[in-house]
Amino acid sequence: MPDTVDALVPFSPDRPKTRLSDTLDPEERRAFAEAMLSDVLAALDGAGFTPRLLTTEPTGRDVPETVDDRPLTEAVNAALDAHGPGSPLAVVMADLALATPRALARLRGSVGASGGDGDGDADVAIAPGRGGGTNALLVRHPEFRVDYHGASYLDHLRVARDIDASVREVDSRRLATDIDERADLTEVLLAGDGAARDWLRDAGFGLDAGDGRVSVERARK
Amino acid sequence: MPDTVDALVPFSPDRPKTRLSDTLDPEERRAFAEAMLSDVLAALDGAGFTPRLLTTEPTGRDVPETVDDRPLTEAVNAALDAHGPGSPLAVVMADLALATPRALARLRGSVGASGGDGDGDADVAIAPGRGGGTNALLVRHPEFRVDYHGASYLDHLRVARDIDASVREVDSRRLATDIDERADLTEVLLAGDGAARDWLRDAGFGLDAGDGRVSVERARK
Repeated sequence: MPDTVDALVPFSPDRPKTRLSDTLDPEERRAFAEAMLSDVLAALDGAGFTPRLLTTEPTGRDVPETVDDRPLTEAVNAALDAHGPGSPLAVVMADLALATPRALARLRGSVGASGGDGDGDADVAIAPGRGGGTNALLVRHPEFRVDYHGASYLDHLRVARDIDASVREVDSRRLATDIDERADLTEVLLAGDGAARDWLRDAGFGLDAGDGRVSVERARK
Repeated sequence: MPDTVDALVPFSPDRPKTRLSDTLDPEERRAFAEAMLSDVLAALDGAGFTPRLLTTEPTGRDVPETVDDRPLTEAVNAALDAHGPGSPLAVVMADLALATPRALARLRGSVGASGGDGDGDADVAIAPGRGGGTNALLVRHPEFRVDYHGASYLDHLRVARDIDASVREVDSRRLATDIDERADLTEVLLAGDGAARDWLRDAGFGLDAGDGRVSVERARK
């Protein structure tokens, strides 16, 4: 394992978070998506990754970026091709607003290697998301390619099996929680500690535990 | 840390899983809840815990049990009183159908102690659930008491602060996933490997990834 590991962060500034359209208008969704991206980049940095944006259009951020407007699967696979087989590459979604350096260190394997998740040097490490998604990946096997359609976690297990690659599951609530829908905002308010949490608070969102279950409410707009 | 740690598993055979009533009839909900309980007990066993049921009525299972029909908070606090301050006590919910020995070992701290989560000997370890719940706890502090109403994770952080107890967060998707609603069944089919997954399959449930997002469907009843 080199001192730092490259991490690709796919981002679509042109069509951010459409499943939040019942809760946020387009400009708000864009700002919130940017805040989450900032949190993910900071957490990656804290975990010893070197992030690179894989973006559908230039972002103007002070981070290396590859612009590729193809669908996610094609763009990530092109990046895996370009990266070459010599060193690992992580792929971390831009909406993991609860990600911390500690959680991402487990993806990297620096914790796993000392016993945390075991198998610290598996060919592929996968942090599954709720609903069968693949929220974060670390790829060490030169032949592994992604397929983000449908239940991508199961697909990625199958891909790994087909090329005889070992797989480590990273069992993290923080990495499993991608922020797509209104109910997910509750998680950001409960467990986030960065720009996305601050953005929601500034926009008037708070927790409502009135009826015993916790949900999100907006005091003002 | 002793060789084995007592673990309390609250269970309500009389009113199982009412939020699944749109999907399962009362008898099915009871059978499914029993299957999840079996999985949790097996995983606790595999992680070196000694489970004890805290049940609202006798279960007839071959596991030590305390019968207490009071609400959850009162019953758990009575058990903490009775347990005495000399040794740790875990409280693990009966509907964590994705729990594995490895995930529960992280609660126990046997992994944390070697670097996994750090702070392996914190006064209180908490595995938060989705929506701010407290899905699993390990209590080492003699004054810590629970409050399961509302966003109990935040309440438990507050309780710990008030008694100056250190807290370790157990960041586990498997422990964060309590099975309450229809959408949660997807997680059991995706990542479960025990009696609850088998029960769902036998009852005709399967995954539907038709539209790109994964949900649960029932082929027959």
